[in-house]
Amino acid sequence: MRRIYVLDTTLRDGAQREGISLSVEDSISIARRLDDLGVAFIENGSPGFNPKNEEYFRRTAKSGFKNSASAVFGATCRKNTAACDDEGLKALVSSKAHVAVIFGKSSVFHVREILETTREENLRMISDSVACLKEHGMRVIFDAEHFFDGYREDPEYALETLRAAFDSGCECLTLCDTNGGGMPDEIFDATKTVCDIFGSAVTGIHCHDDCGMAVANTVAAVKAGARHVQGTFLGIGERCGNTPLCAVIPVLQLKLGYKCIPDDKMQHLTETANALSEICNIRLRPEMPFVGKSAFAHKAGTHAHGVLRSHASFEHIDPERVGNERRILLSEHTGRAAVLYKLRMISPELDKDSPQLSAILDRLKQLEQEGYKFESAEASFELMVMRMLGIAAPFFELVSYKILDEQPSETEHCATATIKIKVGGRLQISAAEGDGPVNALDLALREALEIFYPSLSCVRLVDYKVRVIDSGAATAARVRVLITSADEKRSWSTVGAGQDVIEASWKALVDSLEYKLIKEQQRR
Amino acid sequence: MRRIYVLDTTLRDGAQREGISLSVEDSISIARRLDDLGVAFIENGSPGFNPKNEEYFRRTAKSGFKNSASAVFGATCRKNTAACDDEGLKALVSSKAHVAVIFGKSSVFHVREILETTREENLRMISDSVACLKEHGMRVIFDAEHFFDGYREDPEYALETLRAAFDSGCECLTLCDTNGGGMPDEIFDATKTVCDIFGSAVTGIHCHDDCGMAVANTVAAVKAGARHVQGTFLGIGERCGNTPLCAVIPVLQLKLGYKCIPDDKMQHLTETANALSEICNIRLRPEMPFVGKSAFAHKAGTHAHGVLRSHASFEHIDPERVGNERRILLSEHTGRAAVLYKLRMISPELDKDSPQLSAILDRLKQLEQEGYKFESAEASFELMVMRMLGIAAPFFELVSYKILDEQPSETEHCATATIKIKVGGRLQISAAEGDGPVNALDLALREALEIFYPSLSCVRLVDYKVRVIDSGAATAARVRVLITSADEKRSWSTVGAGQDVIEASWKALVDSLEYKLIKEQQRR
Repeated sequence: MRRIYVLDTTLRDGAQREGISLSVEDSISIARRLDDLGVAFIENGSPGFNPKNEEYFRRTAKSGFKNSASAVFGATCRKNTAACDDEGLKALVSSKAHVAVIFGKSSVFHVREILETTREENLRMISDSVACLKEHGMRVIFDAEHFFDGYREDPEYALETLRAAFDSGCECLTLCDTNGGGMPDEIFDATKTVCDIFGSAVTGIHCHDDCGMAVANTVAAVKAGARHVQGTFLGIGERCGNTPLCAVIPVLQLKLGYKCIPDDKMQHLTETANALSEICNIRLRPEMPFVGKSAFAHKAGTHAHGVLRSHASFEHIDPERVGNERRILLSEHTGRAAVLYKLRMISPELDKDSPQLSAILDRLKQLEQEGYKFESAEASFELMVMRMLGIAAPFFELVSYKILDEQPSETEHCATATIKIKVGGRLQISAAEGDGPVNALDLALREALEIFYPSLSCVRLVDYKVRVIDSGAATAARVRVLITSADEKRSWSTVGAGQDVIEASWKALVDSLEYKLIKEQQRR
Repeated sequence: MRRIYVLDTTLRDGAQREGISLSVEDSISIARRLDDLGVAFIENGSPGFNPKNEEYFRRTAKSGFKNSASAVFGATCRKNTAACDDEGLKALVSSKAHVAVIFGKSSVFHVREILETTREENLRMISDSVACLKEHGMRVIFDAEHFFDGYREDPEYALETLRAAFDSGCECLTLCDTNGGGMPDEIFDATKTVCDIFGSAVTGIHCHDDCGMAVANTVAAVKAGARHVQGTFLGIGERCGNTPLCAVIPVLQLKLGYKCIPDDKMQHLTETANALSEICNIRLRPEMPFVGKSAFAHKAGTHAHGVLRSHASFEHIDPERVGNERRILLSEHTGRAAVLYKLRMISPELDKDSPQLSAILDRLKQLEQEGYKFESAEASFELMVMRMLGIAAPFFELVSYKILDEQPSETEHCATATIKIKVGGRLQISAAEGDGPVNALDLALREALEIFYPSLSCVRLVDYKVRVIDSGAATAARVRVLITSADEKRSWSTVGAGQDVIEASWKALVDSLEYKLIKEQQRR
């Protein structure tokens, strides 16, 4: 089993992605998750760069990580400066991390145009910087920035920059395709040359996805001998992103026989991807290889039919190996067989001749026309089916609600909702003020319901999305609201569609709370 | 210049993606866009499959396309059925399309387990089906389903299935990596073998992105000789999606010297990607290679600095070659140089020592803390700067608004808004009913403003997004609303953040309308 040393740079290169802004808490949570997974290195930001980074280092320095080595990131020293006098390098040393990753230029063009110095001075900067960090007892990884561009321009000089780092005691030479323009063939060839000269054990690879080939380029480098792989778990990073480790790890480990993380951690890949997306406040794209929600979702009639007959027919690996799951999607493309498969998970006694099956299919079509989509709101689908089968009776009845929102407002809350509901013949009126109309309505509804169902107090709303269905109709467009709720144990998603955001939110909220209650009832 | 024949299957394989549902109008708009771009083939759905497809064929059959050939999709005939009696093949023939794409099995496993027939009967099905379509004067493309899996199991049989299609007069043998599990090396080797036997001119490739290598696999097949490339423009498709043509076309044409579409169409790639995303009602992912909004966006201090000094330093191609643009992002990672670059596009006389620069940077930080993000709302950023520089004076002043929303409602509209504004000393009160509170407020505001500014009547809101900023706070969480507006000529995006959806929408709406007015003022 050939070992691969994985370095995750979510906290450094990942933070460069448009729209990402991580708090100290976020960074610590991400590092813990990566440590649990067992990546070899976690690359943190640069010490001294800003106060957030400082606090992060202060809080992680003591405890360290269980499995991963903590690495700090910086540049080689400035031109015409002695390495050990350089502020950046001093900050690396005083961070107390064991590993330093420093980047330097491997391209003549960059040495001339960006650094504005000589070829010799650049070699001196690399060699002195590595030596200085080694003297302070640190392990050093050298990121050869623009290596492949440099190798294309002047292969000899590009290799000389690696030599400068290597001879000063650097333990890893990472070949960076900084602009993401490399092709697998050339990455393979250049990496092979480096491995032949310096050895596989010290050769690393760092790719970007600007041509949509970051995974393939990384795999090509590993096939050429590289044993150190850099990326960000979700592939987030500047421009088109870095190599997504959540894809490269399973390709290398499940398909090509390399070892990136402990085998028993492979089934945590999907969970880790979801957790990191939550922390980064981005949506894990459903079509993300291996870990996306749609990665093993089957919609086409014949594919869904095939996969139900033999899983291998339309799946390249068993989804459970990466902790993901098979899903059969419901839509106009889905045959009765797939809907039936889904229905039998709810009510096992149904079969293909059950009269309820047609009724449910008709209702499904009607709701889809009204703007519902159940693909991402499986709790609402389940409720709809249970209601039609008479398994789920409503837990309350809405009599009326009224919401007032004004600006400027007399109180700090600008919206007030009053609601009247009926539970088993008993009328209950509640009122609440809230931050906006949906919040006020939510609070008033919960206040009324918790009198009858105290367990609802532990339901939290964890995500709330609004989608304009027919954007041409502007603010009058029908909207679909998707709500994800959670209690201590699990999370579920519900959907509501309606003329406006309040009506749609109301429907999704009601489903969210009823789903909790019915699951509780079923467990009793 | 080696010619590549591109087939786009957005309307067939693309429609399999989770969440996609295309109306007939949508399908026609997509086909027109692809035709404008000049792809060789547009693959439509299957005739007879459902009423929507029928209507699509009825409406496109007459006019046809300017540049692209229209292809219909179906399967080989059923087992133990004469091809010309097969209902599916009859439907292909009666569609009046010139080209038929039919898929058949190339894997022994699938013949046995899914088709449940003999190896010989499968060959007969392929050969008879191609022959039948040829007899009816159609051009035939054979999609060899699971070719690479089949080639791995039993290469001889996989090649025999191609032979059956080829000998019956099929013009293209498309090798399909149906499950998306293939690696570039094996795709290259198998494709090379096929090209050696049947010739490059008849060899095609169809990949899926389940390992994140669809682009690399497609390029590997082209390097091995394949001259026909299938994919979907945006990469949408079942599970992880198909090969994204918006990435593969520029890689092949700009980097490797192949010719996929006319050269003067290359700069329409980004525009086409945006248009198709709009029509499909999905978000074009910002990090999409070549055409994504972040594909040439620079955030890191040193990168933004480098790219301003020399574009080639952090860009693998010039964004204009694919109709995209360079963006310098504003955030805590961005140095003053990048903010200044952006500011000088608004006010060219600013320089790095201007006292306004610090004030703007401070305001930017404060707004970011309140939940604003300007990365996708450049119109709001521009307004903020112009307000601080005193270039933009407000066009009106809000005195108050009041919104009432009730259920059940007396009228068909359930929300009513009244608003009081002041324009140049004149008070104006308006009221409107709307589908929901935001719509009512929007209508009331426009009614009041259009009295003073009639040109606002042509502003449409084309997209409206709500993002919960701190999802832990449930419906009380602060929200950020992003609005995209358009008039006849252009579109612009604005952002508002606030305690609730109404407050945030209000701010984004005001920016949207003021931006229109100030641009008009500047043109005068």
